[in-house]
Amino acid sequence: MSSRTDGRENSRTLRPFKINRDVPGAAPGRVLVQAGRTSILCTASVEASVPPWLEGKGKGWVTAEYNMLPGSTSPRKRRDRSGKIDGRSSEIQRLIGRSLRAVVDLAALGERMITVDCDVLEADGGTRTASITGGFIAMVEAIRSIEDLDRSAKPIADSIAAVSVGIVDGAALLDLDYSEDVRADVDMNVVMTGSGQFVEVQGSGEEATFSHDQLLALIEVAQLGIGQLTELQHATLGDAWPL
Amino acid sequence: MSSRTDGRENSRTLRPFKINRDVPGAAPGRVLVQAGRTSILCTASVEASVPPWLEGKGKGWVTAEYNMLPGSTSPRKRRDRSGKIDGRSSEIQRLIGRSLRAVVDLAALGERMITVDCDVLEADGGTRTASITGGFIAMVEAIRSIEDLDRSAKPIADSIAAVSVGIVDGAALLDLDYSEDVRADVDMNVVMTGSGQFVEVQGSGEEATFSHDQLLALIEVAQLGIGQLTELQHATLGDAWPL
Amino acid sequence: MSSRTDGRENSRTLRPFKINRDVPGAAPGRVLVQAGRTSILCTASVEASVPPWLEGKGKGWVTAEYNMLPGSTSPRKRRDRSGKIDGRSSEIQRLIGRSLRAVVDLAALGERMITVDCDVLEADGGTRTASITGGFIAMVEAIRSIEDLDRSAKPIADSIAAVSVGIVDGAALLDLDYSEDVRADVDMNVVMTGSGQFVEVQGSGEEATFSHDQLLALIEVAQLGIGQLTELQHATLGDAWPL
Amino acid sequence: MSSRTDGRENSRTLRPFKINRDVPGAAPGRVLVQAGRTSILCTASVEASVPPWLEGKGKGWVTAEYNMLPGSTSPRKRRDRSGKIDGRSSEIQRLIGRSLRAVVDLAALGERMITVDCDVLEADGGTRTASITGGFIAMVEAIRSIEDLDRSAKPIADSIAAVSVGIVDGAALLDLDYSEDVRADVDMNVVMTGSGQFVEVQGSGEEATFSHDQLLALIEVAQLGIGQLTELQHATLGDAWPL
Amino acid sequence: MSSRTDGRENSRTLRPFKINRDVPGAAPGRVLVQAGRTSILCTASVEASVPPWLEGKGKGWVTAEYNMLPGSTSPRKRRDRSGKIDGRSSEIQRLIGRSLRAVVDLAALGERMITVDCDVLEADGGTRTASITGGFIAMVEAIRSIEDLDRSAKPIADSIAAVSVGIVDGAALLDLDYSEDVRADVDMNVVMTGSGQFVEVQGSGEEATFSHDQLLALIEVAQLGIGQLTELQHATLGDAWPL
Amino acid sequence: MSSRTDGRENSRTLRPFKINRDVPGAAPGRVLVQAGRTSILCTASVEASVPPWLEGKGKGWVTAEYNMLPGSTSPRKRRDRSGKIDGRSSEIQRLIGRSLRAVVDLAALGERMITVDCDVLEADGGTRTASITGGFIAMVEAIRSIEDLDRSAKPIADSIAAVSVGIVDGAALLDLDYSEDVRADVDMNVVMTGSGQFVEVQGSGEEATFSHDQLLALIEVAQLGIGQLTELQHATLGDAWPL
Repeated sequence: MSSRTDGRENSRTLRPFKINRDVPGAAPGRVLVQAGRTSILCTASVEASVPPWLEGKGKGWVTAEYNMLPGSTSPRKRRDRSGKIDGRSSEIQRLIGRSLRAVVDLAALGERMITVDCDVLEADGGTRTASITGGFIAMVEAIRSIEDLDRSAKPIADSIAAVSVGIVDGAALLDLDYSEDVRADVDMNVVMTGSGQFVEVQGSGEEATFSHDQLLALIEVAQLGIGQLTELQHATLGDAWPL
Repeated sequence: MSSRTDGRENSRTLRPFKINRDVPGAAPGRVLVQAGRTSILCTASVEASVPPWLEGKGKGWVTAEYNMLPGSTSPRKRRDRSGKIDGRSSEIQRLIGRSLRAVVDLAALGERMITVDCDVLEADGGTRTASITGGFIAMVEAIRSIEDLDRSAKPIADSIAAVSVGIVDGAALLDLDYSEDVRADVDMNVVMTGSGQFVEVQGSGEEATFSHDQLLALIEVAQLGIGQLTELQHATLGDAWPL
Repeated sequence: MSSRTDGRENSRTLRPFKINRDVPGAAPGRVLVQAGRTSILCTASVEASVPPWLEGKGKGWVTAEYNMLPGSTSPRKRRDRSGKIDGRSSEIQRLIGRSLRAVVDLAALGERMITVDCDVLEADGGTRTASITGGFIAMVEAIRSIEDLDRSAKPIADSIAAVSVGIVDGAALLDLDYSEDVRADVDMNVVMTGSGQFVEVQGSGEEATFSHDQLLALIEVAQLGIGQLTELQHATLGDAWPL
Repeated sequence: MSSRTDGRENSRTLRPFKINRDVPGAAPGRVLVQAGRTSILCTASVEASVPPWLEGKGKGWVTAEYNMLPGSTSPRKRRDRSGKIDGRSSEIQRLIGRSLRAVVDLAALGERMITVDCDVLEADGGTRTASITGGFIAMVEAIRSIEDLDRSAKPIADSIAAVSVGIVDGAALLDLDYSEDVRADVDMNVVMTGSGQFVEVQGSGEEATFSHDQLLALIEVAQLGIGQLTELQHATLGDAWPL
Repeated sequence: MSSRTDGRENSRTLRPFKINRDVPGAAPGRVLVQAGRTSILCTASVEASVPPWLEGKGKGWVTAEYNMLPGSTSPRKRRDRSGKIDGRSSEIQRLIGRSLRAVVDLAALGERMITVDCDVLEADGGTRTASITGGFIAMVEAIRSIEDLDRSAKPIADSIAAVSVGIVDGAALLDLDYSEDVRADVDMNVVMTGSGQFVEVQGSGEEATFSHDQLLALIEVAQLGIGQLTELQHATLGDAWPL
Repeated sequence: MSSRTDGRENSRTLRPFKINRDVPGAAPGRVLVQAGRTSILCTASVEASVPPWLEGKGKGWVTAEYNMLPGSTSPRKRRDRSGKIDGRSSEIQRLIGRSLRAVVDLAALGERMITVDCDVLEADGGTRTASITGGFIAMVEAIRSIEDLDRSAKPIADSIAAVSVGIVDGAALLDLDYSEDVRADVDMNVVMTGSGQFVEVQGSGEEATFSHDQLLALIEVAQLGIGQLTELQHATLGDAWPL
């Protein structure tokens, strides 16, 4: 018997996950990803220059920005216009950028910068992992749009997807929604490649601690979920993948 | 013979205008408005408090924020995270807020604040006027969502819509797209109520000047366009309007 | 019978307007303009470089900054030292700059930047329009001070002046002072050239709307007032105008 | 034989010093002070509240702000709008405020704040000392304007004035202009009361050092100059002083 | 045969770790921790108030700030005075605060805030984990200094320590110094309690990925190292622990 | 009979002053200076470039930054992370930089920048003067570390030290601690060279004034104290001085 908000099985069933590639915008890569009620617009842009510290090295760069739109929460989320992006957003966008770079061959990309913007339209838990899963699709589209790119150099080595898992009432749950996330004793975000390698494992006790067994259980549940997301990604990209 | 980008008549035909009320988000008012390729997400939130300078006066407030998402332009638009919102955005959001307040009875609203957020998904000219036209719908939805509101006090007196007009190659054009806006000698934004009163008239010569006759011609063209937008708004709201 | 604060006729009489060119400072263009109690120090400086986005195009630029000194209001006006100029000031200085550029041939100016600083010493309504009227004089003086300028290229095509008008108690009034401005239902700023062309028309209902007839009446009153200001400007400049 | 820019005697003659009390503005205290070409608008405002850390202690506060207007220098001085006031301005306004407080009985002032704003219209050396000398007059006027003030409590104990002195080519000079200040090996600002007590002595070697004898010589020259400024202040205030 | 910078065994030997409690300062908790050349001053302060969102809930709060002093690196590290703390520092101080809170009973602490400041004097890898290990000692001292604290309520449930591990040239290494950190393909920070529970596990591929086996190996190495650090902490605290 | 906090003689005895050169860090110059309980970490770094306004002039630059660590006071001192360094810190670091430059031959230094960072570990009065006395040692060490420096050009002309003096209860006191500083009517900081020349004299009445005799007495006391500090500096540097 499941005790989950929406009746899902603890460890096997993701929330309905949709990737919509038909969204307005001027950036070459654009998707709307939805995991249950969580909705994120991921757009990816290409610039013909790199940050100053990379100039002249013949390598490219991939970076990400994460932002919650004011209407994504109730009560309304204030904009980050104070001049300082808050610590949580900063941490999330660093995670997204690092994760995407793990599967990109920056030398094969050439001196170009890909910026993946993840703007949250609705927040119901798991925004950072959905941003990675959706941001990967936007990044692929943006890189495909580069006219003079040498694809034989394989700029993207593998696909990448992410999911959140957690321990609620002692059980390891897959893909927590917001109401579950609030009750979780342990919260873990896992990022993996399509071929099953780990990219990031970030587990935190929330004013709590966890055992070695619980750590292993969480990782197993995450592997199951990411496998499903990878299939969805490949189905969405169709002929566009591998690049 | 038309000389317009997309073959429209100079003074009578708007770009295809769509209002979609089925968009993700947690705010009570939410629409996606599209004028040709220009796309804006308007969300409206309700807070049970007012700015400090209005406290205790028994009146509400309506304000707006305007923001272009990074993927809305090519090349990518940088985020306003420097701590200073740029002058153009500030001017636009002041215009949107002032326009919406012109049709709201702030006393009938009670001590509540409505914030209308206009986030541009794609920018192809006329984003400020589309924000007003769409923001009105989101504001109506948000005010309708207030459970204990006294509707008999008529918090919203009239509908409101806006359009841009301009002089290009000597002709007065309705609803300029970006390529036309760049070529315009005079640029004018007009905001009117559903009953045909003016709320704002803002005409500027762009390193150019204009005559009294041209001023009158621009206003006439704007009146025509706003009439069509008003019909579209009322059709979209259906039974929800008047409030 | 007039109902105005100072007994002026509604539509014909400006407040006493003075332009004093004998003021301390190191900038080449300097005037103190006074419209009734409103007093503004306008200084204009010349720099031998242009903003980055204009470099190498052989054109100049004209920009303006608007600022209220702390002693200009009672209670004291706080300085804009927070790192963000407030929205109203930003909007005003954009208007001043755009208005001045409308009569300048930026190519004839060469790669130079003119900055017109408008610092308000006393604020009693109409500061933005007085800034334009006075800023024009300071700009002419600054451009005249450029030693190697080719005047035959006619860098300034026409003079420019501005006035505020508004509807108070149903009547169209010329050149509102602060006490009238607060009571106005409609507030309009009009900028025109010496030869009678429009540069800017900005009319706003203040939690009110206005009819087509009212719009026309306001414009007529503004034209009358600007004609008088233009004469004063030309008298002040004497032989210095036309450039 | 004098070697000074303007032929003045080294140690006895101030630049022409003028105090004009007839200047526009809304603050109760307003003067334009001029020392040679240095011109500063000093305005003083009264607020009926004190900074948070003084609340409820029955004492008042006097503070100062110093600012150079853009037209005060050539090339143009950029405004302090970056969110950080520069170190020099901060140091100067702290000196002005501290100096003025030295002659004010803060308890006799009651829970009020006097803000003295010193806006430089033209800068030709000695702006900080002229700000103190002129700011004193503006402060007296502002305190006199407080309707329910108990003057018998003597809120201002003494007058205050300041001058800069320095060592140029081995000689101690009084009241340096900018061209002399640049060449000075030692720069000293001295603030004294009308009765001849010291308030501030700030002497700095500019990539140089000075002897005990030079220190004494500079102080003697400063005393002479301040005596003359005190007379001018008293003459300007006339019956208004002592308070 | 070891390939490590300083000849240590891969998985068993920490760098020399010292905790010095005799350091200058005014905060009640103060230690200097050193791991090899990495040196961090950890001070802990107590305030009698909590952040606004916790007021009136009868609970306390523990937070941390992390900062690198300019002399801690060569070339010099610039100070975070731009108004925005950089993303890396923000992430680190959030980790330190979250880790320390995992062992504190915030209700038993009462409405007090403990701030643990970690200022890096010299940075040679592992500053965030050394900050946690040392910050724990400073926090214990600060909490012990609270005069009216009810110790029987057990405000600190367990000790906490942290270490970094990583994969370099295919081998799992314990306690990486900077030169090893730069070469690492995978970098992991592990935080554990004295009783062997996990608090945080943060593993990242640096433009690389890692297998399930590597993940398990890293965790095993970290457990070994943290056991040693826990013993050192208990020895340092002596009679002061358990609280 | 002495009335001082710690029983010292008024005008002759410094607090115990220690200079420790064995401190952790990566900067080439590093000392911990202690005057009584006041403790400051001074580090000095060398960069191979100068500020933009000095580029290409063949001269170097010396600058200083002053910062109080959070644990240096009780209650805790908040960090300067607001984007604006407070006025007091700005003033202090400008004093430190100016003082150090007075003894450096910037041309002999070549196009290099020395930054002396003074981070206060514990604040008990006299932090700015201790920063100068200790910063001098750190600067000497940093300049000595420059491998290709031409020492025959004598980049440092003299040693420099500083002390605070003040008038408490009518008596001139040497080297005030915090409790004395709070009670002082006059506060003076004096900076002198090893050969007895003055570099800075900054005396301020704290809501008080002082006579010519008191000024002379303060300077005499300061000379005595600085003489002792100079001896300590030379003893600390040993063979390292003169450079």
